[in-house]
Amino acid sequence: MDDSLLLAGEADDHFHDECGVFGIFGRTDAAAIVTLGLHALQHRGQEAAGIVCFDGSQFHVERHIGLIGDTFTKPAVLARLQGSRAIGHTRYATTGGSGLRNVQPFFAELAEGGLAIAHNGNLTNAMTVQRKLQKQGAIFSSTSDTETILHLVATSKEHDTNARFIDAVRQIEGAFSIVALTSKKMIGCRDPLGIRPLVLGDLDGAYILASETCALDIIGARYVRDLKPGEMVVVTEAGIESLFPFEATSKSRFCIFEYVYFARPDSSVEGRNVYEVRKHIGAELARETPVEADIVVPVPDSGTPAAIGYAQAADLPFELGIIRNHYVGRTFIQPTDSIRHMGVKLKHNANRRFIEGKRVILVDDSIVRGTTSQKIVQMVRDAGATEVHMRIASPPTRASCFYGVDTPEASKLLASRMTVEEMAAFIRVDSLAFLTIDGLYRAVGEAGRNNDQPQYCDACFTKDYPTRLMDHEGADNVRSLSLLAAGGQ
Amino acid sequence: MDDSLLLAGEADDHFHDECGVFGIFGRTDAAAIVTLGLHALQHRGQEAAGIVCFDGSQFHVERHIGLIGDTFTKPAVLARLQGSRAIGHTRYATTGGSGLRNVQPFFAELAEGGLAIAHNGNLTNAMTVQRKLQKQGAIFSSTSDTETILHLVATSKEHDTNARFIDAVRQIEGAFSIVALTSKKMIGCRDPLGIRPLVLGDLDGAYILASETCALDIIGARYVRDLKPGEMVVVTEAGIESLFPFEATSKSRFCIFEYVYFARPDSSVEGRNVYEVRKHIGAELARETPVEADIVVPVPDSGTPAAIGYAQAADLPFELGIIRNHYVGRTFIQPTDSIRHMGVKLKHNANRRFIEGKRVILVDDSIVRGTTSQKIVQMVRDAGATEVHMRIASPPTRASCFYGVDTPEASKLLASRMTVEEMAAFIRVDSLAFLTIDGLYRAVGEAGRNNDQPQYCDACFTKDYPTRLMDHEGADNVRSLSLLAAGGQ
Amino acid sequence: MDDSLLLAGEADDHFHDECGVFGIFGRTDAAAIVTLGLHALQHRGQEAAGIVCFDGSQFHVERHIGLIGDTFTKPAVLARLQGSRAIGHTRYATTGGSGLRNVQPFFAELAEGGLAIAHNGNLTNAMTVQRKLQKQGAIFSSTSDTETILHLVATSKEHDTNARFIDAVRQIEGAFSIVALTSKKMIGCRDPLGIRPLVLGDLDGAYILASETCALDIIGARYVRDLKPGEMVVVTEAGIESLFPFEATSKSRFCIFEYVYFARPDSSVEGRNVYEVRKHIGAELARETPVEADIVVPVPDSGTPAAIGYAQAADLPFELGIIRNHYVGRTFIQPTDSIRHMGVKLKHNANRRFIEGKRVILVDDSIVRGTTSQKIVQMVRDAGATEVHMRIASPPTRASCFYGVDTPEASKLLASRMTVEEMAAFIRVDSLAFLTIDGLYRAVGEAGRNNDQPQYCDACFTKDYPTRLMDHEGADNVRSLSLLAAGGQ
Amino acid sequence: MDDSLLLAGEADDHFHDECGVFGIFGRTDAAAIVTLGLHALQHRGQEAAGIVCFDGSQFHVERHIGLIGDTFTKPAVLARLQGSRAIGHTRYATTGGSGLRNVQPFFAELAEGGLAIAHNGNLTNAMTVQRKLQKQGAIFSSTSDTETILHLVATSKEHDTNARFIDAVRQIEGAFSIVALTSKKMIGCRDPLGIRPLVLGDLDGAYILASETCALDIIGARYVRDLKPGEMVVVTEAGIESLFPFEATSKSRFCIFEYVYFARPDSSVEGRNVYEVRKHIGAELARETPVEADIVVPVPDSGTPAAIGYAQAADLPFELGIIRNHYVGRTFIQPTDSIRHMGVKLKHNANRRFIEGKRVILVDDSIVRGTTSQKIVQMVRDAGATEVHMRIASPPTRASCFYGVDTPEASKLLASRMTVEEMAAFIRVDSLAFLTIDGLYRAVGEAGRNNDQPQYCDACFTKDYPTRLMDHEGADNVRSLSLLAAGGQ
Repeated sequence: MDDSLLLAGEADDHFHDECGVFGIFGRTDAAAIVTLGLHALQHRGQEAAGIVCFDGSQFHVERHIGLIGDTFTKPAVLARLQGSRAIGHTRYATTGGSGLRNVQPFFAELAEGGLAIAHNGNLTNAMTVQRKLQKQGAIFSSTSDTETILHLVATSKEHDTNARFIDAVRQIEGAFSIVALTSKKMIGCRDPLGIRPLVLGDLDGAYILASETCALDIIGARYVRDLKPGEMVVVTEAGIESLFPFEATSKSRFCIFEYVYFARPDSSVEGRNVYEVRKHIGAELARETPVEADIVVPVPDSGTPAAIGYAQAADLPFELGIIRNHYVGRTFIQPTDSIRHMGVKLKHNANRRFIEGKRVILVDDSIVRGTTSQKIVQMVRDAGATEVHMRIASPPTRASCFYGVDTPEASKLLASRMTVEEMAAFIRVDSLAFLTIDGLYRAVGEAGRNNDQPQYCDACFTKDYPTRLMDHEGADNVRSLSLLAAGGQ
Repeated sequence: MDDSLLLAGEADDHFHDECGVFGIFGRTDAAAIVTLGLHALQHRGQEAAGIVCFDGSQFHVERHIGLIGDTFTKPAVLARLQGSRAIGHTRYATTGGSGLRNVQPFFAELAEGGLAIAHNGNLTNAMTVQRKLQKQGAIFSSTSDTETILHLVATSKEHDTNARFIDAVRQIEGAFSIVALTSKKMIGCRDPLGIRPLVLGDLDGAYILASETCALDIIGARYVRDLKPGEMVVVTEAGIESLFPFEATSKSRFCIFEYVYFARPDSSVEGRNVYEVRKHIGAELARETPVEADIVVPVPDSGTPAAIGYAQAADLPFELGIIRNHYVGRTFIQPTDSIRHMGVKLKHNANRRFIEGKRVILVDDSIVRGTTSQKIVQMVRDAGATEVHMRIASPPTRASCFYGVDTPEASKLLASRMTVEEMAAFIRVDSLAFLTIDGLYRAVGEAGRNNDQPQYCDACFTKDYPTRLMDHEGADNVRSLSLLAAGGQ
Repeated sequence: MDDSLLLAGEADDHFHDECGVFGIFGRTDAAAIVTLGLHALQHRGQEAAGIVCFDGSQFHVERHIGLIGDTFTKPAVLARLQGSRAIGHTRYATTGGSGLRNVQPFFAELAEGGLAIAHNGNLTNAMTVQRKLQKQGAIFSSTSDTETILHLVATSKEHDTNARFIDAVRQIEGAFSIVALTSKKMIGCRDPLGIRPLVLGDLDGAYILASETCALDIIGARYVRDLKPGEMVVVTEAGIESLFPFEATSKSRFCIFEYVYFARPDSSVEGRNVYEVRKHIGAELARETPVEADIVVPVPDSGTPAAIGYAQAADLPFELGIIRNHYVGRTFIQPTDSIRHMGVKLKHNANRRFIEGKRVILVDDSIVRGTTSQKIVQMVRDAGATEVHMRIASPPTRASCFYGVDTPEASKLLASRMTVEEMAAFIRVDSLAFLTIDGLYRAVGEAGRNNDQPQYCDACFTKDYPTRLMDHEGADNVRSLSLLAAGGQ
Repeated sequence: MDDSLLLAGEADDHFHDECGVFGIFGRTDAAAIVTLGLHALQHRGQEAAGIVCFDGSQFHVERHIGLIGDTFTKPAVLARLQGSRAIGHTRYATTGGSGLRNVQPFFAELAEGGLAIAHNGNLTNAMTVQRKLQKQGAIFSSTSDTETILHLVATSKEHDTNARFIDAVRQIEGAFSIVALTSKKMIGCRDPLGIRPLVLGDLDGAYILASETCALDIIGARYVRDLKPGEMVVVTEAGIESLFPFEATSKSRFCIFEYVYFARPDSSVEGRNVYEVRKHIGAELARETPVEADIVVPVPDSGTPAAIGYAQAADLPFELGIIRNHYVGRTFIQPTDSIRHMGVKLKHNANRRFIEGKRVILVDDSIVRGTTSQKIVQMVRDAGATEVHMRIASPPTRASCFYGVDTPEASKLLASRMTVEEMAAFIRVDSLAFLTIDGLYRAVGEAGRNNDQPQYCDACFTKDYPTRLMDHEGADNVRSLSLLAAGGQ
């Protein structure tokens, strides 16, 4: 569901991807192209962004708090970013880690020359590695796990850049899609399970690395292929080379939530169009949980593709029963008591005259804390709906993500402390249903979840984490037994 | 169609409403409520906004450039706006008239006390009246026609506030929906033809005046009724009074373009829900101009409701074939030549993998200059569509508006210099069709246009201006003979 | 004395001149030259500034809050101010009247064309005239008395610009040095008593009007002469013309406080160099109030010239016993209690090691509320001075100014509620002495004050106001009998 | 001389100290007190400032570009800086090294806890050490030599904080006055020659470290003593401890230019009051280079104390013949050609009427490039002086400083390429004279310079650098033979 009805101070009720990365090697105006690429990836992180470019003799670094379109589009900023090789990063603000010093890409002058690194994902052993490095005298200027990678490259005993980089990524665990830049090379690398996306593109012969294909489309670049799990590509003036630094072990465990909510609907990830997958999800949902009703209404904009799929499968009219106000300011009004009680509808409004007297199926992508769903339902009821049925385009989210997604602690997740019936009562709907985990796997073209060897990372639904969690070992919300393995759900 | 593919310096290709007004009388935190109301009316003007309130002894005036959510939500601003009576205004930037001194409401201390005026519409005799006032020694501090009204009230020989206000509005011509505030009264007034909207609402006994009902919904206020054409309501502590200052002559000529594009889909204006009207428009369009195709795709977001109506009437799937990037910055990148030729897709992206191989019906609300349509069509073709059919949810726009809508001069309007066939070639579609004027009237519940006494103002389609245009007499693009009267179109 | 030891929220303890004006007619880059002129006049007002210029076909208006060097020096601002004729104004923030709408010059498009007016001084009948104009329907957009002059010109029945301007200035009373600009003329005008300064300069044939000669020096312009009291000069392309709109009555009553504190020491006003007059004041003070001491120390920077004069006349060493910190921020620290008690010395520091054990004569220009003097004296004592004698380079200030100087209400003036002995006890000095009014007149070259027909306006010392005070009649602190006339002081 | 007549883009003609440091241990509102201390040290650096404080459990870091009074005085900034232990730093912008990442104090979380370091001075072997550290894998996030010290502490093999710190400072060379903060200690340290100042103060039992005594005065703290050359003091809750990490070798070589220009006149450094020393310098200058004249005029404000000393010794009147405009903006006007030729006097104005016909002795502290002197002299001549004699309160500056002072390269120094006679012709004075090096030593209480073992660092006059210059070895402008040793000057 969307982050609706926000008043200042209220939390946004969604999982959030933490980063988008983009790099280009060998093209005039590289930084301007990175700016456009990051603009297309803005949904992956809106707090801050950075670009590092190399002009043939020098690196230039710019990092700014704010939207790409407000910061990197200033002529003075782009003027400082000369060169034909550049990488960039856009990020989401997570608690405790904001501030300019955490904005990527990270850059350092190493003994062998400059190195910039941008990273989407999260290392599950960053703190452990950092403590080891600090004992050797390393100085950390940020709280970001990305700086850890930089230190590992810097302190590697290897002599060649590729070897030093491989040395570094072999020491880290978790989810990582990395784009790096040296004076001679652009390097891309995905973790062995390929948890986060990373695609390779081509713009008139210049290689591009990007989190999603929509960042290729904005500049008319050609999609080449997704990097393979555990693959490391090295782009130089001589061309591109593909390496596999990790032992060939496990199969891919791509994050299935990228399909549910994170990726842009016009992107294709791991070979599937996101909009189509979401429509399939809606269709599965209609098949699994049918209900008599007059109209299907999406919670804008997160529920829209699934609602279209649902409506088509159920042969019910798809209707815009809730309208979103696109003008959202930086700050928003600190409500007095008299205003708080008015139930202000800042971001969404039910189309009262249209909804009145109708039986409504509301479709959203997920429920996190449930407070926003509660308000949306109340708004639709106040507008005169005679029945409200909520359909959720994913299984209940019960566990935290440790792979680069901002999730509340597990105890704040509605599904972790209520049954579906209790949730239905809490958000006051006539009926509530979630998609099954197998239904979700069917929507992505599988026969169902292979519980012995799951095809995707679905830990937020199943607690089945595909890697060990070294920094979190012993933490209360991480158990070695997943719910599914225990026959749960 | 929407203002897509914008690079800095390119024009936005849409008609734009110039204002929204909102007032409340008799409620704690009046300015905060006006802020919320203006936020809901932000689609009627994004450049600047102002609020004037009265705290029982003093007036407070705040006017700021920027979005409501960025300016009036600052605690320091609201703290300066004490009182239980307030009016506000949000406006669109028009060429030549920007700058803080033109931001409304206008306020002046007259001999009888303070007076604030906010105005949606445009006076067609403002310059004539202004010249007359200047000859009498009046000083104008803005270039806005609203200040003219203030001067007319100030120089009226009448003694009572109502009489002075009536004296003033009788001297002005054109389109006006006015909200005014004195130390004792809130006044609302619509021009004799009711060209611009103005509705009356009620929040626990406090009266509200607003441009659209969506501004009532945001705060949970009750819709009472639309003001009648030529009606003036006066709200005091004693209650509300209704006056009719103008000779009872002509019937209503409400702006039909409010239904086509300006008003928010969740508003109901003149008794009709805007979303429903737009769906009817889409259905009429499907009936008038059917075509074989696989999918119906809206140009987001302006074409969405009509596309839903079209798809339902044509029994074709409604699909999100074009995705809009909601993150738009303040500035945007000054393209170098190398970037300009890339055909950058800043605001929209065709969903390539989904569109490929399909016959597409594109639905948009209107065509102004045609340049944006051209780019959208090209983008859909590049994505692999085998056929592209454009359907426009209104007749061709051929004439400038003089009633508060920002339109390019007539010669810039594509429809004023090309036939439909030429336009189809220009934007490179397989077929292009516009709704007929009668089809548009049918969508709003009429049998068709009554050419002897048209039920709406439709001058932008027909050049049939419902008032004389004193300031523009003799101007090239304004003829006494309308096209329709001449049997044209 | 200077505004020392300021913590945020504490008042600055000085009289403040409210304005400086500058105009040039017939010189490329006129606005840049006005910018420089206003920079030289910045001591006459630091809150805000404005410039209006005429480029041959259009007027351009820029008004900004802040120092000239921060606002008008931006290339974008100057780029908007084309033309060879321009006037400007810089102003001091007075209570209740700040905000951009009160920043001068005022500009209006009158029936006969544009008119800009900038004004140094204060009209004593502005409210009376304003009420009369409002009854005729005039609208005031500011609270500034300068707008009144604009309205008087606008509503004049005369037909020629000069005649309309003369008509206007004949209706106003008080102190005014006006610079105005029309599309054809630059006009300068001083009130009949010449209370505020206004000089005429010449830059390679282009005429200049400025508050002080230091504004001529900054651009290397030649000083021509001071305008005469009651003189109006009209500059056109044809040359300069001098008119005398007022009845020839009273003699000059130039503000004597301009010599004491307001004017810059390097300016010459009414034929006398300000620095020299201040040295004479110091010398008179030494003669009138000698005292045994080791060193003469100025309160920086206001007391410096008088202290030099004092030291030379008394044959004592002039020494920098107090050092001023020139780095002053926009805001300053909100002190907690623990900090407030530390007696923080933000702006001044006594040179402890140098002062220790010495008998000190402190020289300052005036005492307003006395709180700053108290702190300065304490600081000098804490630094180890064995004796502190305060000498003030003017008589006690006992009355408010109504001629364009920001003074506290009379009851806040230390001298209005204490004898000199009580003041000495209050600020804790070993001795305190003020210059006599005759001593002050001697310093400007007179034999003494001519009580029958005083040569200067000295109302702040004597309550002998040279004009009637129509807006203030009946107010407690304005009596028809001056103290002097009553034989007081 | 001062940085007069500046137009944007012209260089400021002065040597500039690069830093001020301040720390306090054990006092509520520590950060607010550091803010005040840095404000008093603002003359040592105006570009940027930083504060790090420790609240008992956490460190807080704030670094801002701009004046202390504009940045650290904001309530939100101070609110983030809780705790009773804090250190701060203010810095001057030097070419190539600006930007937030170079603002001190530097802070890092080391294995043993947080460490913040602020530093006044310059290391002469920083690049050498940095290259060595990078080879070991160290990552540098700034171009500041201060970060080098942090890395040396981090990589030390010692186990105790004091030992690690001693280990670090023993590896660095050059000039350094360091203030550091850990969770348990505040450490101060001066280089073995004591080139830069550092004093110890006491505020009600809380220890303070500061660059100058004026930073103690502003908060009423007591001066305890100057740290000794090579001394390291460690402040803990238990009290203060004094260590001497360096071999006892050379005697003090305090920077004599601190007396000439850098230090504030109300500070006492190394036991001498700066204002008194400057007066002695002026007196020596009068004795060494007498000349017949009418008045002694300082170039404000840099020449003022020496001019007072000169006037007293020569028994000539000290006069303010040049007035400084204290209102200086952030930017200043980009002059067009027409304005450039006007010889605009932005910062200084000769008091024309006062100077006319007089023989003037101008006193300034030093001549760097000479361009400003040239303009000042021209201005005084234009004002009508019949003779202009320039007296400089220091010997000719012929060499660059490598100890934390921003000096132009030697070839830009007027004295490095002209004789005194040529310089007199260049700046167009009737006579020019510099103080001798022995005269300067006499002014600080010595019998003269001890050429075998100079008592001060005077390398900018003599090229006699008191340390080796490892990073600059082989550089053209650094020779092993000083001019003096070669009998030069």
